[in-house]
Amino acid sequence: MTLTSSVRVGIIGASGYTGSELARLLATHPNARLTAATASGERIGQTMSDLFPSLRGVCDLELEELNFDAMAEKCDVVVLAMGHGKALDLAAPLLERGLRVIDLGADFRLRDVEQYKEWYHLDHSAPRELAEAVYGLVEWNRDKIREARLVANPGCYPTSAILALSPFIAANAIKAHSIIVDSASGVSGAGRASFGVGTHFPEHFGDFRAYNVTTHRHTPEIEQGLWDAAPNQADPDQKALVTFTAHLLPVARGILSTCYAAPLNTLSAEEAHSILADRYANEKFVRVLPLGQWPFIKAVNGSNFCDIGCSVDKRTGRLLVISAIDNLIKGASGQVVQNLNVMCGFEEDAGLQSAAIFP
Amino acid sequence: MTLTSSVRVGIIGASGYTGSELARLLATHPNARLTAATASGERIGQTMSDLFPSLRGVCDLELEELNFDAMAEKCDVVVLAMGHGKALDLAAPLLERGLRVIDLGADFRLRDVEQYKEWYHLDHSAPRELAEAVYGLVEWNRDKIREARLVANPGCYPTSAILALSPFIAANAIKAHSIIVDSASGVSGAGRASFGVGTHFPEHFGDFRAYNVTTHRHTPEIEQGLWDAAPNQADPDQKALVTFTAHLLPVARGILSTCYAAPLNTLSAEEAHSILADRYANEKFVRVLPLGQWPFIKAVNGSNFCDIGCSVDKRTGRLLVISAIDNLIKGASGQVVQNLNVMCGFEEDAGLQSAAIFP
Amino acid sequence: MTLTSSVRVGIIGASGYTGSELARLLATHPNARLTAATASGERIGQTMSDLFPSLRGVCDLELEELNFDAMAEKCDVVVLAMGHGKALDLAAPLLERGLRVIDLGADFRLRDVEQYKEWYHLDHSAPRELAEAVYGLVEWNRDKIREARLVANPGCYPTSAILALSPFIAANAIKAHSIIVDSASGVSGAGRASFGVGTHFPEHFGDFRAYNVTTHRHTPEIEQGLWDAAPNQADPDQKALVTFTAHLLPVARGILSTCYAAPLNTLSAEEAHSILADRYANEKFVRVLPLGQWPFIKAVNGSNFCDIGCSVDKRTGRLLVISAIDNLIKGASGQVVQNLNVMCGFEEDAGLQSAAIFP
Amino acid sequence: MTLTSSVRVGIIGASGYTGSELARLLATHPNARLTAATASGERIGQTMSDLFPSLRGVCDLELEELNFDAMAEKCDVVVLAMGHGKALDLAAPLLERGLRVIDLGADFRLRDVEQYKEWYHLDHSAPRELAEAVYGLVEWNRDKIREARLVANPGCYPTSAILALSPFIAANAIKAHSIIVDSASGVSGAGRASFGVGTHFPEHFGDFRAYNVTTHRHTPEIEQGLWDAAPNQADPDQKALVTFTAHLLPVARGILSTCYAAPLNTLSAEEAHSILADRYANEKFVRVLPLGQWPFIKAVNGSNFCDIGCSVDKRTGRLLVISAIDNLIKGASGQVVQNLNVMCGFEEDAGLQSAAIFP
Repeated sequence: MTLTSSVRVGIIGASGYTGSELARLLATHPNARLTAATASGERIGQTMSDLFPSLRGVCDLELEELNFDAMAEKCDVVVLAMGHGKALDLAAPLLERGLRVIDLGADFRLRDVEQYKEWYHLDHSAPRELAEAVYGLVEWNRDKIREARLVANPGCYPTSAILALSPFIAANAIKAHSIIVDSASGVSGAGRASFGVGTHFPEHFGDFRAYNVTTHRHTPEIEQGLWDAAPNQADPDQKALVTFTAHLLPVARGILSTCYAAPLNTLSAEEAHSILADRYANEKFVRVLPLGQWPFIKAVNGSNFCDIGCSVDKRTGRLLVISAIDNLIKGASGQVVQNLNVMCGFEEDAGLQSAAIFP
Repeated sequence: MTLTSSVRVGIIGASGYTGSELARLLATHPNARLTAATASGERIGQTMSDLFPSLRGVCDLELEELNFDAMAEKCDVVVLAMGHGKALDLAAPLLERGLRVIDLGADFRLRDVEQYKEWYHLDHSAPRELAEAVYGLVEWNRDKIREARLVANPGCYPTSAILALSPFIAANAIKAHSIIVDSASGVSGAGRASFGVGTHFPEHFGDFRAYNVTTHRHTPEIEQGLWDAAPNQADPDQKALVTFTAHLLPVARGILSTCYAAPLNTLSAEEAHSILADRYANEKFVRVLPLGQWPFIKAVNGSNFCDIGCSVDKRTGRLLVISAIDNLIKGASGQVVQNLNVMCGFEEDAGLQSAAIFP
Repeated sequence: MTLTSSVRVGIIGASGYTGSELARLLATHPNARLTAATASGERIGQTMSDLFPSLRGVCDLELEELNFDAMAEKCDVVVLAMGHGKALDLAAPLLERGLRVIDLGADFRLRDVEQYKEWYHLDHSAPRELAEAVYGLVEWNRDKIREARLVANPGCYPTSAILALSPFIAANAIKAHSIIVDSASGVSGAGRASFGVGTHFPEHFGDFRAYNVTTHRHTPEIEQGLWDAAPNQADPDQKALVTFTAHLLPVARGILSTCYAAPLNTLSAEEAHSILADRYANEKFVRVLPLGQWPFIKAVNGSNFCDIGCSVDKRTGRLLVISAIDNLIKGASGQVVQNLNVMCGFEEDAGLQSAAIFP
Repeated sequence: MTLTSSVRVGIIGASGYTGSELARLLATHPNARLTAATASGERIGQTMSDLFPSLRGVCDLELEELNFDAMAEKCDVVVLAMGHGKALDLAAPLLERGLRVIDLGADFRLRDVEQYKEWYHLDHSAPRELAEAVYGLVEWNRDKIREARLVANPGCYPTSAILALSPFIAANAIKAHSIIVDSASGVSGAGRASFGVGTHFPEHFGDFRAYNVTTHRHTPEIEQGLWDAAPNQADPDQKALVTFTAHLLPVARGILSTCYAAPLNTLSAEEAHSILADRYANEKFVRVLPLGQWPFIKAVNGSNFCDIGCSVDKRTGRLLVISAIDNLIKGASGQVVQNLNVMCGFEEDAGLQSAAIFP
């Protein structure tokens, strides 16, 4: 494929971390290139490298005001990198113009509009688009993503939790009501625009804390993703019910999720490991670690990998599964590229081959 | 009390972080002073401030080789700051010489010598001393500590977990077999002598990981401490069985423990909060936060406080209790001073009045 | 001294880091206590511990709106913890009411109102108060501070630089025009209210950069402080001219200043060290390190110490002097307490005895 | 170029950070691949991903014992990633077998064997190879590197300092005896095997300090590199004499060098900027920032870029030049790849196109 025939990608709302990370990844993608990026207010007319000096000489594209017709002319695929609620009105006009859309936000993830309203306090104004949206967790929805016009890119915590636990749900090996997901994330997950006293450097340096305890919006997304893997979705016992606790790490990037579940029947560590290893044997980006090894965020940060380890606590019988991802790559913009690759028939790891930056 | 009549404290094994932290705290203690500190090998003859330049001008005491008679002559109370196993042979000769002893290590914490052997892979060679040892969690054992000759200073993770959960065990409000303790600690908990590739700065900077999964030695100590609070210890259902997972934070200090348990009967957040608040109403060093507020390690680091918050996940019914301590103070040397104060009849916060260093 | 006879201290503008740090230090001061704290806007009516959870149970004083008469009734000494410009109008009404004042800001540091205008872009509206203000670097102005009504607490960088270099100016050992001060500070120096994208945690985590290059406002203050030490202030060659570069460290606290100067005559490392050691032999808070040892910020953070080391580069003949302080303690609120102690005739280290928190 | 015709690269001493970083970069290089990696002791037989879990699935090459004939059979180019002194005996046998060699260590950087002995305390046992070695700073030695058999990859600090200052030496714009280079580096520069108490995570977290003050071995390398740029090397006034101070940052990666020099004649900021901008106008990896902008390490970390900014202090007349690099990429393994690309006639940025990982 020649450069001129490569897929043209636009970003709506490119001034945040997911925007800059996508621009960085596309800059070395062999089959895709960034051709339009929008922003609002005073950022219009600035370049991506004005906002992110790390991109100087790599992506100096000028930010423009959103114009649907201009996007349709310049792009084949559009990525929405906005806070929740804002994509509701954007999907339809883009799809109508023949563009394919990947939404980094939460608006097309939950299939149940009531649940969306309950957790996001908004009426879902795009139910038609929601109905056709595909949840973009490639390892579990690859076939649907190929043909999708609208892909809902998964949330960062849900990516880490669903990849860790779905194999056990699929194998009907754990009690779906017993699940606890205890996660910790780097602060970039909060976004660039979220700065405030709470993320002021001196306040968070050396700190660790839980936040949004029992109320984090990723909870129903994790439950839906796990439910999707259930062999018998009609069985209410197989419908996941999850206690999810998010913590804020004093690092910029990375998510580690420590997941607990009660096995339905006695489960050995070896059996647990086989369930994971078999499920992901052919997945490029999921690395199941040998028994006795555990993931850590520096082994994945900067890469699109999800590392997973597991064990069974012999004393209590509980299954433990721990997963690690880079929240901005496998948990956001890398997964966008992975979805793009699947949608366009590229190699699934095109533009995503870098290992983690270590140390 | 005049200076000459103040209690004289010795440290055996003063070259680690608990030693330096104890030296720092005693330097401003109104009723106690450090009069002897031992080390081994080439450190003998060096001063505390040679090893810890932060102590220059504050504690320039010279390290000496251990000599029981010299300790008896110079000290009233001796603190053992050694790795586990080493205190087994030290307690008896010190007690015989009339000294009172506080052990920072694990040798006198578990009352069951079989359990000690199982988790520490050592025969317990001091069962007589073990029999008289008092577990030095002041908030739960104050009366016994007053008269104790040998106090086993609690482990750092157990301090955070037991303070968080014991009120609920004591109130018979939770299923003792349902407990999960998910903790994260700063690296100082590993000690100064533990340096290696794993704690080499570049490897751990920006990292987060679990370690000793399902096998951490603080597990039985947490269970014993919780069991001690049970209203009916003969009831096997009240004997705590805990899944404990420790994680390593990329910070120097601080422990946050996120604890999960299933209530025995339906429990509201308000009821849960009352159980905590009532139990600790008169405790100087335990701060129960209002509902909706959660602890964080920077609010306690540098202080002897343990902050605790709680809630109930309405969707799953689970109780969440989160606690924060400074692992080297309330989780180690500060608790030693607190024990010392109780043993000697001083104000319980003597030498421990500093708030956390923030930010 | 009974509690009621202790000195009563008020803070105007207590909602920032210097305010909380002063509240923390005063909470354990044997001769002084915080009796009033003001803030503005929605913070009025909140407590210090609402703003700083680390102070819960330690300083729960309620913030009030500024009222000069109320301050005069409740306080003996008032500390101004405001940004520059704001103290200009506050000093006179406080002094008129018989209060003694310590200003943490920059308004009374530069004696030359033209220089003040040049660097701070403000007309100095309180020249009468400026005329009586004493620069509160205790180690160099102790006698004047004793009787002062208005003390200008030094800036953080100037404290580190002047303590490092003044002995060499006083000894007429260096060329006053050859000085370069290359400093790095933790982000708390920017204050709590300064949060923004630039200090958003993910942006600064793992970063290091220079800022305000060639234009930092502490430059003339460093020059004035050094000039004050010159044996012959009429000699223009002894008037310091300094290139000062500030860098932002990815830590919360601490300043390290690496200072370079050309000796007037050949100077050996031993001679340089003697100049430092002799000058500070009787200073409690300045620790001159032996030749071959160098300061580091973790050896002073949490304490009021300034550690200083020096050497001479044999190849180039240049003098190097490196100093370390905690910017919020010796560089701000600790120095306030030190000034307070001198002004009130207390022990100079009252309330300031804690060694650094290490590690 | 097909895969089989790509250049085959071997690493001798692949178990350190420069080895893993080179393996990471080569894994996505379009024209080169890693075909052999050696180690010693117990690491023989382990894979690169055993040592560096971040490389799992990316580079699982097995480490072998060094055998010159095996290297000659498997490789076209060999990279030496050893501490200084060890490459002295390795270069000749590799060159004799027709291999081209890039040395990451210091053994072939200083052309003067007396100077090598003075700073490294070793006799240089390979003067013949030294005589043909080319200093691998591509931006200044590109033509020589093309044909070189033995390339001495520059040190990390020298890369940052020479790129910053050489344009001014070349323009004869500064006094070569007036130069001060004040640098700060992440701890990865110390290497993986250097772990110890000093780099134990708790000790260095939150710290900042100078080290090897006046004695750092990169000093003569900086001077030699600057001297090389002098228009008249016979003029002793143009021979650089540098005071160099290295500091250790509490980060894993990145070097920022703040350089000071006295202009020979009055120099404006604009003139200084032109000297830099003109010199590097055609360099892919050197980004000269506009006046008023300054580099920071997070803008380059993870990339092969060197960012440079400059100004002139109007008050003192001094030139300031600040540069930032990733010490493991442009300061080590990325520069190896850049040298490899030049030696082999590849695109100079092959395998080096990634922008910095931000935030």
